[in-house]
Amino acid sequence: MASRGVFLDLTADPVDLTRQLVDIESVSGNEGPLADRIEAALRPYGHLEVIRDGNVIIARTNLGRAERVVIAGHIDTVPVAGNLPSWTTGSGDALIIWGRGTCDMKGGVAVQLSLAVALTEPVRDVTWICYDNEEVEADLNGLGRIGREHPDYLAGSFGILCEPSNARIEGGCQGTLRAEIRLTGQAAHSARSWRGHNAIHDAAEVLRRLASYQPREPVVDGLTYHEGLNAVGITGGIAGNVIPDSCTVTVNYRFAPDLDSSQAAAHVRQVFTGFDLVITDLAPGARPGLELPAAAEFCSVVGGTPQAKLGWTDVARFSELGVPAVNFGPGDPSKAHADDECCPAADVVACHAALLRWLSEPAGAGSG
Amino acid sequence: MASRGVFLDLTADPVDLTRQLVDIESVSGNEGPLADRIEAALRPYGHLEVIRDGNVIIARTNLGRAERVVIAGHIDTVPVAGNLPSWTTGSGDALIIWGRGTCDMKGGVAVQLSLAVALTEPVRDVTWICYDNEEVEADLNGLGRIGREHPDYLAGSFGILCEPSNARIEGGCQGTLRAEIRLTGQAAHSARSWRGHNAIHDAAEVLRRLASYQPREPVVDGLTYHEGLNAVGITGGIAGNVIPDSCTVTVNYRFAPDLDSSQAAAHVRQVFTGFDLVITDLAPGARPGLELPAAAEFCSVVGGTPQAKLGWTDVARFSELGVPAVNFGPGDPSKAHADDECCPAADVVACHAALLRWLSEPAGAGSG
Repeated sequence: MASRGVFLDLTADPVDLTRQLVDIESVSGNEGPLADRIEAALRPYGHLEVIRDGNVIIARTNLGRAERVVIAGHIDTVPVAGNLPSWTTGSGDALIIWGRGTCDMKGGVAVQLSLAVALTEPVRDVTWICYDNEEVEADLNGLGRIGREHPDYLAGSFGILCEPSNARIEGGCQGTLRAEIRLTGQAAHSARSWRGHNAIHDAAEVLRRLASYQPREPVVDGLTYHEGLNAVGITGGIAGNVIPDSCTVTVNYRFAPDLDSSQAAAHVRQVFTGFDLVITDLAPGARPGLELPAAAEFCSVVGGTPQAKLGWTDVARFSELGVPAVNFGPGDPSKAHADDECCPAADVVACHAALLRWLSEPAGAGSG
Repeated sequence: MASRGVFLDLTADPVDLTRQLVDIESVSGNEGPLADRIEAALRPYGHLEVIRDGNVIIARTNLGRAERVVIAGHIDTVPVAGNLPSWTTGSGDALIIWGRGTCDMKGGVAVQLSLAVALTEPVRDVTWICYDNEEVEADLNGLGRIGREHPDYLAGSFGILCEPSNARIEGGCQGTLRAEIRLTGQAAHSARSWRGHNAIHDAAEVLRRLASYQPREPVVDGLTYHEGLNAVGITGGIAGNVIPDSCTVTVNYRFAPDLDSSQAAAHVRQVFTGFDLVITDLAPGARPGLELPAAAEFCSVVGGTPQAKLGWTDVARFSELGVPAVNFGPGDPSKAHADDECCPAADVVACHAALLRWLSEPAGAGSG
């Protein structure tokens, strides 16, 4: 392992490759060194067209297959918390890889890169994408940038995002809307409170509606989603002796992908009828598209029962371009960003095996 | 007026003296120069015992009268807002004095100092007190400090605080209590909100109780007080995608002086039964004591109908020492701290005249 940290060995087994990737720190904004090594490691492979665009690396086959799929993962991580370089515990099927990025999501990137170089003749053309800035402000997101500047790079009939999903298929994603409900009162000295109007007291009705809200659990393309409408922030008050003249409740609506953005906005406005409401953030979800042949075949290869993805993920960026997509990657999403971030080696192996089979066997062979 | 700003002329009419005092800036913490001049101006008067203690100046007669009254005012102001030196508008009865400290409360201090030197033989012994640091943290308050260190200086049967009251008697003061109601939930990702417990939603019931609260308006010693229980602050939420695990509502209870501190605390705890409540600040009010002979005579001299003082004032510091007290001073309290702070000259004249008569005529002469 003398080369670890200097050259990436993409022919290593994907568990070892996960550790190689993890040990090159790549907190958002510092993806350059890792992107350089990924690019350098991919360039020698003649079956891949390699495109470098900023810190996004695209490697694609051009075999003229009837179908193209896009398989993507981000190479940045949240800040390190004393958890680099990586280490392992256990062995065999119980091996666990620990450290920043193991779960979110260098295990998934290792699966991608390992298969990108190994699959010289996949049965579907594949566009492999490694991108930057997923963990920071949305407008920096590398996949979003490519989608705006080169939507052709993302063209395909089906997408897979290798975000952690316990090596199970999580279809589509829910949308997310944030709004501020702004209550306005009249300031007064609190010793003469009746001369004012307490804006915080007016929030009682807003919070009552939230507390009694019954979220939908709709079935979309065969998957059951689970909505939620919650206060995620409240602020009001000027000083300890002043009747507050303003109070703001920030709410977050997570909505199933059977609603588009305008329907989601209309619903929230309806819930808070009578209040001053400003939508501050709105990102639609993505339908899972599991009825498509490629998706059905993928589900068959992976096995198990696909679940609905409840959190918003970059699959929605595929959806915006008309590409249905699922989440499928190693690691438990609850370990993402955690100080004890880790990933079971068995998940890496399972994801690698499933994608290898799906991309190796003739289309249709796995659907029996 | 060549001496203005260098030597105080306490024999000037009280309106002119108000302007002399106003033109010596004395924002809290910088009372020294003004205190020095007040002390120097009082020292020559043989009928007064002058005590300087920090920036507190006490001047008292020792005539062996049957009764001693304490008349106090603070010499500090809130920060200047481009409103010094003073200026006037109008003339005669309509003269208005403008500038920082005119209302809060150098008009009142001018009345005190003018009478202190003029009344060589008041019918009641008088302790005149000028004190510092009223506009800042309570533990710096000069009257409070003297009350702790030399309670004998504040001894008397009745007190008058010359805070602005439109030259009318405002009796006693309401107490004030602040408490934090702390709601605790369970954090979770807002895409899976049912795995957590939303602490902000739990505030709905707290705000409902506040919004429906019916404040008392009790009559105490003949004056009608008006209570209030209000949220003065609310805060909750960690991030836009997290179910908040905590929310804090800060409430302020203004209570009439028929309740002591422990009764006020018990009432607030009863209102918020079932919630985690921490009292962070509690200052009792003061009964007006208007049933006392000296107070009744004072009311008779001033005329009009005494009102209850709703805001907390330093009269409560007298009350703690067993001295009933009222607020009586020139100026509209709503102009205190305002950028357009001002005081009608007529109020200064009226307060001066009323106190002069009360302290000049034989006890009992004014009660018919």
